[in-house]
Amino acid sequence: MAKDFSISMLLDFYGELLTQKQRDFLEYYYNDDLSLAEISANEGITRQGVRDAIKRAETQLRLLENRLSLLQRFDDMREGLTRIINCAKIVHEQNLRCGLSTEINEAAAQITATAETLLDD
Amino acid sequence: MAKDFSISMLLDFYGELLTQKQRDFLEYYYNDDLSLAEISANEGITRQGVRDAIKRAETQLRLLENRLSLLQRFDDMREGLTRIINCAKIVHEQNLRCGLSTEINEAAAQITATAETLLDD
Repeated sequence: MAKDFSISMLLDFYGELLTQKQRDFLEYYYNDDLSLAEISANEGITRQGVRDAIKRAETQLRLLENRLSLLQRFDDMREGLTRIINCAKIVHEQNLRCGLSTEINEAAAQITATAETLLDD
Repeated sequence: MAKDFSISMLLDFYGELLTQKQRDFLEYYYNDDLSLAEISANEGITRQGVRDAIKRAETQLRLLENRLSLLQRFDDMREGLTRIINCAKIVHEQNLRCGLSTEINEAAAQITATAETLLDD
């Protein structure tokens, strides 16, 4: 079974709506990069049992995103913030080259800092 | 019962996890501004029945936000975008006053447009 790394993002968004067990399994598998066999050995259940539990939890996360589209909304935000950072870079460089306005410099720096903070959250 | 208008936002975020009936009632009450008596008359159930259904749906929405905090994340995004728009305004005005760089002007306009589009979504 191929690892679908968008699951990590979905888990971050909707994980609290899964059971603790489902969350644990997905975290072992996606965030801690354990194999099915390793999780199976640690948890004392069959490899197939782990696989089924993970598949079911993944399906639930995808259904939640299909209904709510909140990860999609955030992705759009993140894309826009990246464009904003690029524009602020142009302002900064252009101001260095021809303007040297302290106010423009500070405002551009604040735009970049704000957008980067939002992207990190 | 006092109308809590943050419910409209929660409904926009998590409404798809409620039943169609719950969604309808909240929409009548919060988005269409009908009274409990009006919804009761339209739906042919008691005023108390409407009230209870709305209260239960509201509780579910609040529980979802308590667990997922996705509306809070979006509010933080929106606050940051508003700060970015203010900074882009400073860049624009300062550039008009002392620089008149076309590149700075265009980049500032693009920052504003991008942030405003994200706020409108």
